[in-house]
Amino acid sequence: MDAVEVTISEVGPRDGLQNTKSFMPTAAKKAWISAEAAAGVHEIEVCSFVPAKLIPQFVDAEEVLAHANSVDGLTAVVLVPNLKGCERAIGAGARRITVPVSVSEAHSMSNVRKTTAQAIEEFVRMADLVRSQPKGKRPQLVGACSTAFGCSLQGVVAEQDVLRVALALRAAGADSISLADTVGYANPEQVKRLFGSVRKAIGEDFAIEAHFHNTRGLGLANALAAYEAGVRNFDSTLGGLGGCPWAPGASGNVVTEDLVFMFESMGVRTGVDINKLIEVRNTVFAALPDAELYGHISKAGLPKGFRPLSLAA
Amino acid sequence: MDAVEVTISEVGPRDGLQNTKSFMPTAAKKAWISAEAAAGVHEIEVCSFVPAKLIPQFVDAEEVLAHANSVDGLTAVVLVPNLKGCERAIGAGARRITVPVSVSEAHSMSNVRKTTAQAIEEFVRMADLVRSQPKGKRPQLVGACSTAFGCSLQGVVAEQDVLRVALALRAAGADSISLADTVGYANPEQVKRLFGSVRKAIGEDFAIEAHFHNTRGLGLANALAAYEAGVRNFDSTLGGLGGCPWAPGASGNVVTEDLVFMFESMGVRTGVDINKLIEVRNTVFAALPDAELYGHISKAGLPKGFRPLSLAA
Repeated sequence: MDAVEVTISEVGPRDGLQNTKSFMPTAAKKAWISAEAAAGVHEIEVCSFVPAKLIPQFVDAEEVLAHANSVDGLTAVVLVPNLKGCERAIGAGARRITVPVSVSEAHSMSNVRKTTAQAIEEFVRMADLVRSQPKGKRPQLVGACSTAFGCSLQGVVAEQDVLRVALALRAAGADSISLADTVGYANPEQVKRLFGSVRKAIGEDFAIEAHFHNTRGLGLANALAAYEAGVRNFDSTLGGLGGCPWAPGASGNVVTEDLVFMFESMGVRTGVDINKLIEVRNTVFAALPDAELYGHISKAGLPKGFRPLSLAA
Repeated sequence: MDAVEVTISEVGPRDGLQNTKSFMPTAAKKAWISAEAAAGVHEIEVCSFVPAKLIPQFVDAEEVLAHANSVDGLTAVVLVPNLKGCERAIGAGARRITVPVSVSEAHSMSNVRKTTAQAIEEFVRMADLVRSQPKGKRPQLVGACSTAFGCSLQGVVAEQDVLRVALALRAAGADSISLADTVGYANPEQVKRLFGSVRKAIGEDFAIEAHFHNTRGLGLANALAAYEAGVRNFDSTLGGLGGCPWAPGASGNVVTEDLVFMFESMGVRTGVDINKLIEVRNTVFAALPDAELYGHISKAGLPKGFRPLSLAA
């Protein structure tokens, strides 16, 4: 395998699908995961272990995860909101679990009916459960600081609050910390500053990840700023899937294929074959005819003379 | 007036309109220019002095320029492709003239039927004409290196060629050098490198400008990279107007309102009132019903708690 310099972590099957109106058939989800892994995306968040009555899209979480775990070379990630979800995820064979904790109190209450402090306590219980698993079966645990760059309910989120949550999640046993711009409020200057402070606080060698939305068009600029601040793991969704149903016209996550194009054009290896990735986009979304898709490179095409790094290996 | 830290140079009335199917009525152009200037955009490229039989959109160049020159506090810029256009522009009272010279030979031949060397010779004649104007009536001259980051005909454009053209334009008498990503091929790493080399060659204190398209989605990331390389003057178009008619789905210039949002959110003063700017977008384009518009901030709205710098003055 190539020496990959940044990890592209596709979160479309989870963050993208949780807001789409129509149910994507289980077979289509599996095909998407397989195809995108074959294009060189080796980390994919495949589902969320939430009650199916809350988000029916994830009624097939166990089956989708089992499939993803069988895909060669793929690290399947699952999202988990609470201890019950964590138990289910571990029971289903999860190898990497992301647990979001909202730094914004208002967002935390609205999202999981817990204060941030209560959400951290729940995280501690999940970390204990993870640690109690037999070696070899113990999943990795990602502590995700949601609304780290601002909140549509609360407005500004203080940097000190983000540092406090990140340190708490690390202390509880997270293997990696993610900073998430849940509502698309981040700007590049803030991204550099906040990742800089958090990395300093949790340790420069500690694993850190970025999760950006493109709601206000700054997704790629923020990813660039995070890269310059030392981040090497980026969430994104194919076609930018993930528009918020309560904000029509507001686009969703950073677009995977545009993010890959940015890094590859800069000479930064993603391990992804961008031509194959664009094909995956074009076929996968036949299964989601009413989804609003975004992105530029899939329409404009690669520059003349552009040589994908994946071919130079 | 605020201490403006970056100049936003709207090029919609020129670069945006030159590819639209329908003619924008002269009154609508004037209203656009006045309204955007009132929102705090103090540099606007208002027309092109090309033969009307080639681009009928600019049949009213003289009248539009005369109006723009009458707008308080506005620097009106005009584009000029050759000596004849330069004579017309000076006759019409142009105060700032942009002359593009394609670094790509293939693009130069296709665009103005001149080799790059011949285009430089024509630039020298224009610079001489500009210099021969009486003091006080002498316009500023911007030498724009087109296709500086790549060319859809030729592919890769060598950095040495860009340096050679930039130095020639400066030597001929340009007051400022612009590097233009005419076809949307640039990436942030290349932007930093090329602006770095060119600034080193022409002098760090010499005026330099950036012109990016958003064809492959990297417009704002490239603007960020150019800012980090010391650039403080950026072309863009309201609503990203300027899609190429030969590349359906390929978006046009960097979106002015998103660019302003990026800088203002970073704490970098543009002097622009973003709320007014978004209003301008929403009214101006009633006069261009078939134009394809882009941009995020106009749809998503400003973040809660966002305080425009223009209000803090």
